[in-house]
Amino acid sequence: MRVARFKTKTGVVKYGIVSKDHLRVIIATPFEGMIIGTSEAYGFDEVTLLAPCEPSKIVAVGLNYKEHVKELGMELPDTPLLFMKPQSSVIGHGQEIIYPRQSNRVDYEAELGVVISQKATNIPEDKAHRYILGYTCVNDVTARDIQKIDGQFTRSKSFDTFCPFGPWIETELKPDNLKIECLVNGELKQSASTSDLIHSVTKLVSFISQHMTLEPGDLIATGTPKGIGELKPGDEVVVRIDGIGELKNTVRK
Amino acid sequence: MRVARFKTKTGVVKYGIVSKDHLRVIIATPFEGMIIGTSEAYGFDEVTLLAPCEPSKIVAVGLNYKEHVKELGMELPDTPLLFMKPQSSVIGHGQEIIYPRQSNRVDYEAELGVVISQKATNIPEDKAHRYILGYTCVNDVTARDIQKIDGQFTRSKSFDTFCPFGPWIETELKPDNLKIECLVNGELKQSASTSDLIHSVTKLVSFISQHMTLEPGDLIATGTPKGIGELKPGDEVVVRIDGIGELKNTVRK
Repeated sequence: MRVARFKTKTGVVKYGIVSKDHLRVIIATPFEGMIIGTSEAYGFDEVTLLAPCEPSKIVAVGLNYKEHVKELGMELPDTPLLFMKPQSSVIGHGQEIIYPRQSNRVDYEAELGVVISQKATNIPEDKAHRYILGYTCVNDVTARDIQKIDGQFTRSKSFDTFCPFGPWIETELKPDNLKIECLVNGELKQSASTSDLIHSVTKLVSFISQHMTLEPGDLIATGTPKGIGELKPGDEVVVRIDGIGELKNTVRK
Repeated sequence: MRVARFKTKTGVVKYGIVSKDHLRVIIATPFEGMIIGTSEAYGFDEVTLLAPCEPSKIVAVGLNYKEHVKELGMELPDTPLLFMKPQSSVIGHGQEIIYPRQSNRVDYEAELGVVISQKATNIPEDKAHRYILGYTCVNDVTARDIQKIDGQFTRSKSFDTFCPFGPWIETELKPDNLKIECLVNGELKQSASTSDLIHSVTKLVSFISQHMTLEPGDLIATGTPKGIGELKPGDEVVVRIDGIGELKNTVRK
């Protein structure tokens, strides 16, 4: 099932189940038990898609594909390397990434996103799947020049619009062997499989939950494969993951 | 004026103005215009103090006192070094800091906290004061051993209970020359003045707002002075800032 969050033309925000030609509004939110459709539905041309949930936090994982660690010239960490992106950096499918004046080198990073379904503290790896609502596409946009200056990743990854994710949450998917791609202006820039993740999805949920309580709607960005490169104003960037779909955003000054 | 957030015995959460012997409930929240008291009041023994607001994000500043940079053996950064702590790490005055099993070295860090009053994007330094609701005490609790392993600060500073702040927000205070102290079991461990901050409060608000939009209730932890050291289960730790008050927490396994 695909669950989207959207705004109607009258400005009301709703969650809905995505089908081929419409969005069926659900009872409550996808974080409150069974996801049940109502009789209220909208065509895609009647709504604006938003980021598919509102994370209380976004925990991202650095250096989680071997080939990407090599291209950055960094060392492979023994444990997942965590950092965070703020709520204020979130945008949805179709919204614009704003190129900040503080940077001269802004990069895309295609990532598999994991959306948490319920409060998770100290979860063992073999139970982690119970705490996952589903999967989405994330673009962990990064001001590479600032990342190099600071060492700490926060400033470079926290600009407004630097966390596009969506277009929706796919709730029925095995995350361990999905093709993940990034395209800029139609040209393939990143292509990998989530089977190359150093730390698997369930390992990450377990590990992070042992360090901080995860809340319903929290987002984990699982790391980017090799092939990183820069975005320029005017570019169209797509993160495409098999079984989920395409997250498309354009870049502007 | 001092504004606290608290829970009544029936479990209702309210904001109130702090006076010598009671808490006077205010209309709405301190982030919605004038702070106006109502006729409803509680004695301190009738309520549990909570963290004085609910930040959508907590932006912390590393290495912002020269002597502390020296004691860590790190280099002084040219610009404020930012990192974040998650909402899930927040506790209030009087709540317990839980010593995580993942660490063998947990440190206190006394810091001046700045609470944002309204949405702030690209604010010049000379207008930053308009976006500050007030000041509070923060203990930026840190698993020093994990901080050294990761390089990135996130994991070491994000455990549940690792962001005590409070006891309230003081709205009438000049932040530029306040004595800040940390005491462990009554023994003075840190003692400095906010006049020693490398980057001032208004500089930080301006700088951060140029990198990410600050929201009402967001918390900035301005960095810790020298004198860091460890906490053990059973310890009582106090962050005391002149003009604000004392944030007291105990540590347990």
